[in-house]
Amino acid sequence: MQQGFTVWFLGMSGAGKTTVATMMAEHLKARGLKVERLDGDVVRQGLSRDLGFSARDRQINIERVAFVAQLLNRNGVCVVASFITPYRRMRRFCRESIVRYAEVYLRCPLDVLIRRDVKGLYRRALAGELTHFTGISDPFEDPESPDLVVDTARDTPRESLERVLELLAGKGFLP
Amino acid sequence: MQQGFTVWFLGMSGAGKTTVATMMAEHLKARGLKVERLDGDVVRQGLSRDLGFSARDRQINIERVAFVAQLLNRNGVCVVASFITPYRRMRRFCRESIVRYAEVYLRCPLDVLIRRDVKGLYRRALAGELTHFTGISDPFEDPESPDLVVDTARDTPRESLERVLELLAGKGFLP
Repeated sequence: MQQGFTVWFLGMSGAGKTTVATMMAEHLKARGLKVERLDGDVVRQGLSRDLGFSARDRQINIERVAFVAQLLNRNGVCVVASFITPYRRMRRFCRESIVRYAEVYLRCPLDVLIRRDVKGLYRRALAGELTHFTGISDPFEDPESPDLVVDTARDTPRESLERVLELLAGKGFLP
Repeated sequence: MQQGFTVWFLGMSGAGKTTVATMMAEHLKARGLKVERLDGDVVRQGLSRDLGFSARDRQINIERVAFVAQLLNRNGVCVVASFITPYRRMRRFCRESIVRYAEVYLRCPLDVLIRRDVKGLYRRALAGELTHFTGISDPFEDPESPDLVVDTARDTPRESLERVLELLAGKGFLP
């Protein structure tokens, strides 16, 4: 049976997680793999309607996603996950729970994120309208041991994708 | 791709859910299908550590399981679920959320369950030591539209299994 794996994109809002993760999922599907995308919107609807954005709630949310990712992986389904994943404890949990796991940090400096602000969220967070906003009113702990760091202020999504594919190939995840 | 399905065993504690579900999972695996067992113990550890046994918490728990079951099914994985599922609203939710779904009610009269009481739970519930115990201090709403009712006070687990397999074949779920 085809073995699944999880590629987990983390980084702040606006760093490009959804863009790169969507491209990755399409790429893997085109290679004939079974793929599920797990992201905040999907999961908070189906798994975590009860949860808010406190540190505790964020942790529980990520633990659930890790459980589901491993369940899918062991049945041959690849998971492309994209979550801010702001705390080190969460990343440790994922690495310990998911057997075939690749952690990719999409790094983008805060000043660039604030300047771009595609969704207008940083403006609102800076104005105090959004609480628990990662990078402004909530911490983003610097990743200690990602498998790959991609600088999305510099690299295009296509370049980022290529680097992640190299990582997955190097880990022996791609058939 | 092989299509998955969910067979959902419901009924009170001691009615035989785990026994029949385990046999079913083994049977399906022996046929070469990919199978996941989802039951209260597994799920409350990985998905629902935060939840108790109030009607609201039970509902949320079942909704999460249904979400995960459908995720597995659409990737070709069969799910054998066993949950008390005491409320009609839960069963409706499952039927609406899971595309290929078979609901099996394992029925056993309460007096038989109390007499057997393999885990000693009914004794404790009747003594008032367990709150929210389905059938004693919490309701079990009579299933309105199960696909199959198995009388586990009368039928052996093997006979119950045969009847469920007939149901799955009749629904076109078995390849």
